[in-house]
Amino acid sequence: MMNGNIVRQGQSWIFTVPPTLIAAAAIGGPKEGKGPLGADFDYLFADNRDGQESFEQMEQKMLQIVCEMAIAKAGCVVDDMDFFLCGDLLNQITSSGFTARALSRPYFGLFAACATAIEGVILGSLLIASGAANKIMCAAGSHTCTAERQFRYPNEYGCQKPPQSQYTTTAAGAAVIGSEEGTIKITAVTTGRVVDLGVTDSFNMGGAMAPAFADTITAHLLQRGVSADYYDLILSGDLGRVGRDIALDLLYRRGIVLNEHRYVDCGCLIYGDDKSVFAGGSGCGCVASVSFGHIYRRLMSGELNRVLIAATGALLSPTSSQQKQSIPGISHAVALERI
Amino acid sequence: MMNGNIVRQGQSWIFTVPPTLIAAAAIGGPKEGKGPLGADFDYLFADNRDGQESFEQMEQKMLQIVCEMAIAKAGCVVDDMDFFLCGDLLNQITSSGFTARALSRPYFGLFAACATAIEGVILGSLLIASGAANKIMCAAGSHTCTAERQFRYPNEYGCQKPPQSQYTTTAAGAAVIGSEEGTIKITAVTTGRVVDLGVTDSFNMGGAMAPAFADTITAHLLQRGVSADYYDLILSGDLGRVGRDIALDLLYRRGIVLNEHRYVDCGCLIYGDDKSVFAGGSGCGCVASVSFGHIYRRLMSGELNRVLIAATGALLSPTSSQQKQSIPGISHAVALERI
Repeated sequence: MMNGNIVRQGQSWIFTVPPTLIAAAAIGGPKEGKGPLGADFDYLFADNRDGQESFEQMEQKMLQIVCEMAIAKAGCVVDDMDFFLCGDLLNQITSSGFTARALSRPYFGLFAACATAIEGVILGSLLIASGAANKIMCAAGSHTCTAERQFRYPNEYGCQKPPQSQYTTTAAGAAVIGSEEGTIKITAVTTGRVVDLGVTDSFNMGGAMAPAFADTITAHLLQRGVSADYYDLILSGDLGRVGRDIALDLLYRRGIVLNEHRYVDCGCLIYGDDKSVFAGGSGCGCVASVSFGHIYRRLMSGELNRVLIAATGALLSPTSSQQKQSIPGISHAVALERI
Repeated sequence: MMNGNIVRQGQSWIFTVPPTLIAAAAIGGPKEGKGPLGADFDYLFADNRDGQESFEQMEQKMLQIVCEMAIAKAGCVVDDMDFFLCGDLLNQITSSGFTARALSRPYFGLFAACATAIEGVILGSLLIASGAANKIMCAAGSHTCTAERQFRYPNEYGCQKPPQSQYTTTAAGAAVIGSEEGTIKITAVTTGRVVDLGVTDSFNMGGAMAPAFADTITAHLLQRGVSADYYDLILSGDLGRVGRDIALDLLYRRGIVLNEHRYVDCGCLIYGDDKSVFAGGSGCGCVASVSFGHIYRRLMSGELNRVLIAATGALLSPTSSQQKQSIPGISHAVALERI
């Protein structure tokens, strides 16, 4: 009993009656504000704690504010949201749980590491396109001080990092998806499978996730029946400079040549050529804030018409790394179009 | 553009064309096998590691095996599953990520603490009932040695526990949901909001989750327009003995009197009167294995006709507890009926 609004092809769901990205918002910290995308954030905090008692509370505050901003931009109130779909990098996704407490809407907690925001958009789009819901709020965020401490070492230790490492973004993004008319349509989604080619270096997340990105891009283009040139922009998030090069190579070997000017990575974009972040940015807030800030604004203005966002997540934990497990990668993709 | 197969009432979605619980399976460890529900598991391991190098690998193995069992019982192959919805208690839900790697299906990682299995069934039911998918696999699991170590202390320390504490179940459960005909229908779902009345004692999870259970039960009965007596059985999972008493009291004050013989809690059921578990069982695997083992079998045999499962999750982390945050609770409910 497949729904007339949706056509399924393999891992891809193509919407004949596509849901609308009604509004989106992005929020960041001081380092993100100084980057080349600084002007695309709806709000920038002057410091990474902003008076909160802990960095964890700051992460939660950012998530809550960005949700409230997206809801306001959509001309809605929080009670209009049928569901709140949210996740973050913290153990037991506590920032999301506390935000869900503040919003008091039916809540689904999600986890796809740095791809969490797009997991939310896919689930939200399926629920909207199929008529199971009218309006859904999707969000994700991360904070450099909470994530670095949890996954590696507190930043205050000043540990040396290798060049393939990435820097967790202090940022959050939120989007309101709905069935009403609007400028930006979610035309297709591709849900990722877990791909793991055996990378065990937990600093090399870009390398670990690149095969999943290649897998999802290949599936998406084949299943939707379009070439990479169909999109004005393909955005990966967040492979960083190391992962981006691997991804280009993996796709080239499959006969998919991405135009280097029309394929960008969130992790490379967000801090520009700032050497202090090594291979680039990462974290749930990276693809969330770049997609719901920078990309959303360019779609709204008409500078971009068709964008494919393929977020990537490294599904490791400190425990799985210590136990010498390799790093499972996943990549979830959504196509945003002005139609 | 709400879907004709679904009627939304507040937080509840009532299915006019309800999806089917095609098959379900439950798996457990030795302690679970010795409990009063021992005969309701599809497979019991003789020890908590079963030759695996780590308890984490054992947790993942259990999850994978229970998924394969449910798929086999449904007469399906893994490739029939449009989506794999899974979560667990480990940081970054790694057991689920590794299981998704093994199954290689489009994967959504979920987290609702001990309510994760039912979060999966709700999302799965919405996607099936709305026609966005044909078959979905939902699963969750937990392991006492991984969870106790991560959330509290390794069991080997032999720490004293207070009487309100619960014991993490070593178990996993999986269900295949689909649009085809079948004996057990998922007739309605109620998605929980986060409720937090300020409990900060991380041993008292039953007390922290009971208000969320009361909130969801109240919403479900009101929004579906039925009384508690409509159900042959209401199952909470897992409030334990302390939380169960609080839940009965909270509901009584709202004018909802649950019949004590027709309201049971997974955490109380699974180990019977075994005093070593203090207030009862807990963990993702508790409601998953009791629902997809014990309850599923009684519905299939006709011993039960209408069951409401309201799973409960305590959305805390060791970090949030150390930072003296209170414990957000959530409760997700699904109605399973022979119709």
